[in-house]
Amino acid sequence: MTGFQLNERLEADSHAVCALELCDVRLMNDNRYCWLLLVPRRAGLSEWHELAAEDAAQLSAEISRASGALKTITGADKINVAAIGNMVRQMHVHVVARHEGDETWPGTVWNSGAAIPHEAEALQAVRKKISQELAPGV
Amino acid sequence: MTGFQLNERLEADSHAVCALELCDVRLMNDNRYCWLLLVPRRAGLSEWHELAAEDAAQLSAEISRASGALKTITGADKINVAAIGNMVRQMHVHVVARHEGDETWPGTVWNSGAAIPHEAEALQAVRKKISQELAPGV
Repeated sequence: MTGFQLNERLEADSHAVCALELCDVRLMNDNRYCWLLLVPRRAGLSEWHELAAEDAAQLSAEISRASGALKTITGADKINVAAIGNMVRQMHVHVVARHEGDETWPGTVWNSGAAIPHEAEALQAVRKKISQELAPGV
Repeated sequence: MTGFQLNERLEADSHAVCALELCDVRLMNDNRYCWLLLVPRRAGLSEWHELAAEDAAQLSAEISRASGALKTITGADKINVAAIGNMVRQMHVHVVARHEGDETWPGTVWNSGAAIPHEAEALQAVRKKISQELAPGV
């Protein structure tokens, strides 16, 4: 964990929600979607195959938690999960609640036009809801 | 495992490569990218959070293997990993070798125009290479 520092662009584009055992959970600042980032707190990590075996298992468990939480909260038709990293190499996993008929459905959310920032009050409400669903004991 | 049957569209768009413990590995029929699909042999599975805990861990291990194999074979600049499923709900994980300057770089490969099918000889060679790298004992 030593030396981990969140990438500046990821930090600018999203808001902290909570910390799981391996990953920081962040909410993308785009109110068109309920869109999380899971960022493993491991310095220098970029590719899935660079994860230690136990971290790979833990990441998958945390993706499951995030996916289930978004399904519960939003009633999404489909959850999209992706580790892309062509723009920002620090490993980050997108977990996005999708609804049939949303702005880019059935296309993907990446490079899909300008984000619409959350309004302050709504942002606090959604962060709280996700945090309670993901890490109820914290 | 009972009742698992590969979705018709996934079958039509890709070629079998090998079987890992959980997933069938398939090569997308698009020679613009070295692009694998991992399809867990579980009937009715659509979302990451529907995976049993041990399957989630195994899927992550198999993604790591596929990602590392593509890196070794292609020298890719970045491996993209994604479970989207907006078009085909049967769970399938894309693992794609990306190179700076490839046709859609730094964008994603989904909805990126018409696939260019592999030629028969090249197809056999790449399937064999991936199979040997992923499942050397088989």
